[in-house]
Amino acid sequence: MTKNLSQTQKAYLAGFLDGDGSIYVRAKPNPTYRYGFQIAPYIVLFQSQKDKDNFSKVCALIGLGHLRERKDGILEYIVSKKDSIDEFLQIVKPYSILKREQVELMSKILKAKHKVQSKKDFAILIDLIDQFRELNYSKKRKVRTLTP
Amino acid sequence: MTKNLSQTQKAYLAGFLDGDGSIYVRAKPNPTYRYGFQIAPYIVLFQSQKDKDNFSKVCALIGLGHLRERKDGILEYIVSKKDSIDEFLQIVKPYSILKREQVELMSKILKAKHKVQSKKDFAILIDLIDQFRELNYSKKRKVRTLTP
Repeated sequence: MTKNLSQTQKAYLAGFLDGDGSIYVRAKPNPTYRYGFQIAPYIVLFQSQKDKDNFSKVCALIGLGHLRERKDGILEYIVSKKDSIDEFLQIVKPYSILKREQVELMSKILKAKHKVQSKKDFAILIDLIDQFRELNYSKKRKVRTLTP
Repeated sequence: MTKNLSQTQKAYLAGFLDGDGSIYVRAKPNPTYRYGFQIAPYIVLFQSQKDKDNFSKVCALIGLGHLRERKDGILEYIVSKKDSIDEFLQIVKPYSILKREQVELMSKILKAKHKVQSKKDFAILIDLIDQFRELNYSKKRKVRTLTP
């Protein structure tokens, strides 16, 4: 369905993600995985519960994730499947400004993850994930009030 | 300068504003004004200090406001001049999804503000501002952590 998005719809989604979204990846220690870690990438968009109807329209346009409501009432639209993340990244890549580096590095990470066949490949992947963390947390995180 | 924005740039800015921005208007009691109130509309975009370089690019694309850093480190790009707000609204109007109602109602408010010549006109304006407040605060406000 996302194949049918117009250029302006793609640009809109790039703006929405840049303004409001998070792209991140975690390497969770997990002994059941071959190299001892589960690699979990995510794209998440956030909105206040009061905008649920309109936010649902934006989510429907993307059509790659699922909407959940946190206990504090914030809505999260979560894209967590590898192929869905990849598709979302391709949609926004030509238009993203603020998160351009994250978009490009996450694309690399997904490719590297797909290629892993040895400890050496896995080390390359972990190195990319470290680079990504630095990109996201280069300065301390801020807390803010969610305004209308 | 904003006249030269492409359709996809306009759509991007609509997405950014929808995801991250605030549109609001205050009627501040002020006895030096003819009808006892100063009507102050704003459009504000927010980002974390860590994204200053890239956020500045988005702000430069808009070119209608000014960037300030709050004491808590959050950057605010504030559009407060009536003509600038009007121009920004015209840019995003065809593409906005989440804030479509706010965009349209704020356009009406700016027109009504321009027309005020009597107490009756001013009452109409205040009524529109009340409608806008209801749109923004229809459910209780939420606090969230600013994620990467």
